[in-house]
Amino acid sequence: MATIEDRGGQARATAEPLAIICGGGPLPFAVADAATRSGRAVVMFPIEGWADRAALARYPHHWIALGRFGRLRAQIRAAGCRDVVFIGTLLRPSLREIRLDWATLRLLPRIYRMFRGGDDHLLSGIGSIFEEHGLRLVGAHEVAPEILVPAGTLGRHAPSARDHADIAQGIALIDAIGPFDVGQAAVVAERRVLAVEAAEGTDAMLDRIVALREQGRVRSARGVGVLVKAAKPGQDRRVDLPSIGPTTIERVAAAGLAGLAVRAGEVIVAEPAAVIAAADAAGVFVIGVGTSAEDTAQRA
Amino acid sequence: MATIEDRGGQARATAEPLAIICGGGPLPFAVADAATRSGRAVVMFPIEGWADRAALARYPHHWIALGRFGRLRAQIRAAGCRDVVFIGTLLRPSLREIRLDWATLRLLPRIYRMFRGGDDHLLSGIGSIFEEHGLRLVGAHEVAPEILVPAGTLGRHAPSARDHADIAQGIALIDAIGPFDVGQAAVVAERRVLAVEAAEGTDAMLDRIVALREQGRVRSARGVGVLVKAAKPGQDRRVDLPSIGPTTIERVAAAGLAGLAVRAGEVIVAEPAAVIAAADAAGVFVIGVGTSAEDTAQRA
Repeated sequence: MATIEDRGGQARATAEPLAIICGGGPLPFAVADAATRSGRAVVMFPIEGWADRAALARYPHHWIALGRFGRLRAQIRAAGCRDVVFIGTLLRPSLREIRLDWATLRLLPRIYRMFRGGDDHLLSGIGSIFEEHGLRLVGAHEVAPEILVPAGTLGRHAPSARDHADIAQGIALIDAIGPFDVGQAAVVAERRVLAVEAAEGTDAMLDRIVALREQGRVRSARGVGVLVKAAKPGQDRRVDLPSIGPTTIERVAAAGLAGLAVRAGEVIVAEPAAVIAAADAAGVFVIGVGTSAEDTAQRA
Repeated sequence: MATIEDRGGQARATAEPLAIICGGGPLPFAVADAATRSGRAVVMFPIEGWADRAALARYPHHWIALGRFGRLRAQIRAAGCRDVVFIGTLLRPSLREIRLDWATLRLLPRIYRMFRGGDDHLLSGIGSIFEEHGLRLVGAHEVAPEILVPAGTLGRHAPSARDHADIAQGIALIDAIGPFDVGQAAVVAERRVLAVEAAEGTDAMLDRIVALREQGRVRSARGVGVLVKAAKPGQDRRVDLPSIGPTTIERVAAAGLAGLAVRAGEVIVAEPAAVIAAADAAGVFVIGVGTSAEDTAQRA
């Protein structure tokens, strides 16, 4: 496939197809659809064991395996791509299942050092490795900005003044822990922090609220409290934007919270129509809030 | 019982007996024993449904019920006490089980406001209420300083340089979230924050590490990583010092961590001999570290 580039700026979309390395879940397809709608061809590179086999039928795709970076690079170049989006779930895979090719083997000491540095280092490091091999790692939100939650409410429910106070508290907490390369979410009810996300992920954190409530350790009533979610400060957004989907809404409702606030422009929504339908049905709000704690506090 | 006070200073112990309001667990008895050893009489006020009935036989005691503050105050004064220690576990009790007396009823609007303000407000508020009623709320560590974990290692295992780096990271994280009236503990492994404690408590947080490890979501090997625990900055230490016991050690070991670091002088150890025996047997370290993140970093 011919590469037609406009080196004068980013205003004109490049004609080369976009490579999408696909982990699990619906996000890779949301990105592929958005890129396609914008007139850009896509080639999918689904990861064995993670990507959704059935959903792939609609797109040109080449299966890839973890640990085969040399082969992946060759496949991407053979497909005429240079821009690469890496998206979808990929929980810590078992190292035993990974068979390494030579290119990956050479990168191992570096990857090992990145692993020790925490998620932020790992993911930015992967970005650098792609660049050095003639590929360009781009954020899903750059090729498909409509997948980001915008400012304002989605759906028909809106936060109360009390909810706004909880949102401000949650955003401030997330800002405070940002330097520690830790989770990107917290649950706050009546200004009390009920849960802080670290390695367990947002879903498990919300399930914990359900358990705490059953144990009588949540003082606030059902319908009070918010899940707050944002990108970490300094997070490399090309490879690790937080995301929400209909199951997030279900878990927010099951946890007895009033709603979900994300920082506008920092969180991906995989299936917006399904998220809005789920939120409206469950009676919870979904809102994108200002990008600084100050903005949020002013709304409260 | 006559009150003999030395108003000139704290050097001489007062002769009035110490009132100990007892929640669950072994801590009330550790404090009672330490106070008794220091020559001070104690009268226990065990809370129905929480305090350990069998262990109480050794001490003069009067059962009390939650929600009966007027009656409690009368009982404490009738026993000739003025200084009151409030210690032991008391998970959020079910409001339905609490029958209020008039004194408590009058305090309710104030207690409700304190509840909304988070743990710190609640507990300091209770301290003020005691003072206004002619009682003096004192910290368990003031009457029994030996129950606090001192600086240095307990038992025969010591942290490695890597463990010290994890400890410094954990202490810094706890300092950062201090203003949010949130948990007092975190788990850090190879400088990656695996868990942050909020409403679930330390035991549940450690159990989470076991589950994350089973799911392959903990990258560090067994024997790597630390539990770090400290009092919150600004926490009212008279009513809410964090504590560790033998079960904490068992959970640290089960979570596959190298050990446990607490800020020296800020954390109660209920049964030090049992904690040391458990730590030595499990091969984990227990250490009291400097009271600021800077001190800890210097050790690392």
